[in-house]
Amino acid sequence: MSERKKTTIILFSGDYDKAMAAYIIANGAAAYDHDVTIFHTFWGLNALRKEEKVPVKKSFMEKMFGKMMPRGADRMGLSKMNFAGVGPKMIKDIIKKHNAVPLPQLIEMAKEQDVKLVACTMTMDLLGLQEKELLDGIEYAGVAAYLADAENGNVNLFI
Amino acid sequence: MSERKKTTIILFSGDYDKAMAAYIIANGAAAYDHDVTIFHTFWGLNALRKEEKVPVKKSFMEKMFGKMMPRGADRMGLSKMNFAGVGPKMIKDIIKKHNAVPLPQLIEMAKEQDVKLVACTMTMDLLGLQEKELLDGIEYAGVAAYLADAENGNVNLFI
Amino acid sequence: MSERKKTTIILFSGDYDKAMAAYIIANGAAAYDHDVTIFHTFWGLNALRKEEKVPVKKSFMEKMFGKMMPRGADRMGLSKMNFAGVGPKMIKDIIKKHNAVPLPQLIEMAKEQDVKLVACTMTMDLLGLQEKELLDGIEYAGVAAYLADAENGNVNLFI
Repeated sequence: MSERKKTTIILFSGDYDKAMAAYIIANGAAAYDHDVTIFHTFWGLNALRKEEKVPVKKSFMEKMFGKMMPRGADRMGLSKMNFAGVGPKMIKDIIKKHNAVPLPQLIEMAKEQDVKLVACTMTMDLLGLQEKELLDGIEYAGVAAYLADAENGNVNLFI
Repeated sequence: MSERKKTTIILFSGDYDKAMAAYIIANGAAAYDHDVTIFHTFWGLNALRKEEKVPVKKSFMEKMFGKMMPRGADRMGLSKMNFAGVGPKMIKDIIKKHNAVPLPQLIEMAKEQDVKLVACTMTMDLLGLQEKELLDGIEYAGVAAYLADAENGNVNLFI
Repeated sequence: MSERKKTTIILFSGDYDKAMAAYIIANGAAAYDHDVTIFHTFWGLNALRKEEKVPVKKSFMEKMFGKMMPRGADRMGLSKMNFAGVGPKMIKDIIKKHNAVPLPQLIEMAKEQDVKLVACTMTMDLLGLQEKELLDGIEYAGVAAYLADAENGNVNLFI
């Protein structure tokens, strides 16, 4: 049996700041040699969307959801002080000024550190998101796979 | 000592989508033979309210809270894209179209799978909710009971 | 090796009700002899701000964030039914009427019970908060310290 510690995070939130927290913890845990999984569900799936528009067939409702939800990490809003989009801009300016790492790069780092990025297939279906709209190199699974990871985990978080 | 795994979820949120996530995880864990508890506190208590109005004596403040909070799972709003109630309707349409399970049925399933549904007595008191306003077959407890469950748990989440 | 159970909470949220939940769980766990840590990050740092204005040198952006964020636990808003500040007042009235404990006292209790209160230095930096603006007797650390606590924890929550 592996002696590696395990960190499993559900990213439910579609907020830039909450996703930052999730990815900072994930990258930290990976650096400390944990096996790390981020399971993206509901609005958290938006962090995995490609920035460019991907032409896919959708129903009317799916198109609406697709339009209303942010395409990719860089377009997500803040959970507090969003101010119709001014908040995220402020945070990003501050991140740059402090040489901190913005969310899209945190996601890149996570991939490089072999953090397992999973998209929840059930909620992809509900929100009308398709595999080609999401980043390459991620995995697709459901609640059973999440539980298999989490039940032996050391750090389990819902963000 | 029992060898069964244990999942303990605090449902703090009164959002339809977050409660869905909580109940999907709970039902999944129960199907995988975990002992599962959902501890409802603050706005999460609304998921346990009966749909019909129950005549109970309340102070003025308690009446106001009672009126402003949704009566039951089916009336809860979304954490994102609520659009004054249009969002939940869209989600419910999509759930129906995808043959997914809406929240009130997820709660029914949880009961049938012996998921322990607990209402936090301290916050019931704060929000002026009384036992007869909540669903039958649930338990009533405080933070001590939560900790007793959670401290031996495998999957602990705050939603 | 210590036999004491361990509870580690990340307080990300700047909402009065969520902070209350965090501190009620923390105080409960401390009463049941857990080693308890609350790691305050992002908006959760506001719970640790001193109520009085502390004169510190800040950049323009840091001043703006400082002004827009609540100074201390007593000034935080609710996650639901905030109603431009009326909600918190209602909750505080109810807390008083029910002889429940308001947030600033919950924080005091936590300190008396040796709950370790940690401020996340990385997000302090981002939001422009300085040590002298925060309560006395707290610790300063980053994600590595959090993980060291959490990876051996029994109850790990993200609030």
